[in-house]
Amino acid sequence: MGINGSFKQKLPPRTVERLSKYRRLLDRYAGADGVHIHSHRLAEMLNVSPEQVRRDLMLLGLSGNQRRGYLVEALLERIGETIDSEAGNRIAIVGVGNLGRALMGFIGNSDTKMFIVAAFDIDPAKTGAEIMGVPCFHIRDIPEKFNELKIDMAVLAVPPEATRAVAEKLMQTAVRGLLNFSSVHLDLPNHIYKKDYDIITSLEEIGFFIKS
Amino acid sequence: MGINGSFKQKLPPRTVERLSKYRRLLDRYAGADGVHIHSHRLAEMLNVSPEQVRRDLMLLGLSGNQRRGYLVEALLERIGETIDSEAGNRIAIVGVGNLGRALMGFIGNSDTKMFIVAAFDIDPAKTGAEIMGVPCFHIRDIPEKFNELKIDMAVLAVPPEATRAVAEKLMQTAVRGLLNFSSVHLDLPNHIYKKDYDIITSLEEIGFFIKS
Repeated sequence: MGINGSFKQKLPPRTVERLSKYRRLLDRYAGADGVHIHSHRLAEMLNVSPEQVRRDLMLLGLSGNQRRGYLVEALLERIGETIDSEAGNRIAIVGVGNLGRALMGFIGNSDTKMFIVAAFDIDPAKTGAEIMGVPCFHIRDIPEKFNELKIDMAVLAVPPEATRAVAEKLMQTAVRGLLNFSSVHLDLPNHIYKKDYDIITSLEEIGFFIKS
Repeated sequence: MGINGSFKQKLPPRTVERLSKYRRLLDRYAGADGVHIHSHRLAEMLNVSPEQVRRDLMLLGLSGNQRRGYLVEALLERIGETIDSEAGNRIAIVGVGNLGRALMGFIGNSDTKMFIVAAFDIDPAKTGAEIMGVPCFHIRDIPEKFNELKIDMAVLAVPPEATRAVAEKLMQTAVRGLLNFSSVHLDLPNHIYKKDYDIITSLEEIGFFIKS
């Protein structure tokens, strides 16, 4: 059963997020022939309902065997077909402090189609050098280098006070996706898909639910 | 209009997350007397609908003035009353690599009731010393130190292969909340409120939506 482009575009962000998480959980079974998994086991591991898991997988045209569940190989293959782009993504890390380095390690060690092709900073000790095997350029060169290296995704790990200036540089590129760790709100044009992550928000949510 | 404990417990996680985000956005207006904000402006900044904002604030007993919107001071006060605990939270950072240090910086510089009281690692160059003003102990001392320092929240920033061993140590403490950056799934007892953050999932979501 084929999946066409317009169908893909209709998957909601939360579904795509869960598909990516299913895959990460299933990766440990990769290569094991004929292994099955039940929706309630996936559900348990992700704190969602088994109905949610079945609904998500149904959207990809997958249904489980009532007794044995889903064939892991088939899940991995179909999730990959759905969410991966063939060429992968070319990523820039903007801001090479502790967070930037941590992100470079995470992405570099991951078994995905995400490739870090450049890093950017303003520190002369970093620009012009290689950091963790990746060339580091000055932030003022973002427009030129993004174009030259065909970067389509940027990860923003600069301090809050630098965020807006960097965002203005990004507006001069053809970047299409942005992951923003800076906790500063950015008004970006609609053709850029943006996701913010704010650690304080996560901690405050936990703090709320453990309040006695 | 008072808010009682049982009411608070009924707020869904997504609502609490948004309340925390509203507060971060509103913080820039803090101290400015009599400033109002419209639900559609908050909605725009967070990529949600104005109806969603109004519903969230209605849950806290707040309703806006049709012409002027919401009084910022009142929003900040009520959100604080709702999500903050009076004493704040005592946090341990477990794993003091690049990510651990980045998290210590974020939390230490934030204007919240989140206090980092200890760090844990296995590297002898770190344990026994202070890192960014915080005492660092060996991971084997987690049970003793969590108890002694009354730590109620842990942030897990250790490599994937170390995660399960650390989680077992955490099970020997009275910790109630956990933010897990390790991308390893943990089965924890229900009395621990857990949140996972996985950067690869965020990148894959962005990758999906920018696929042409």
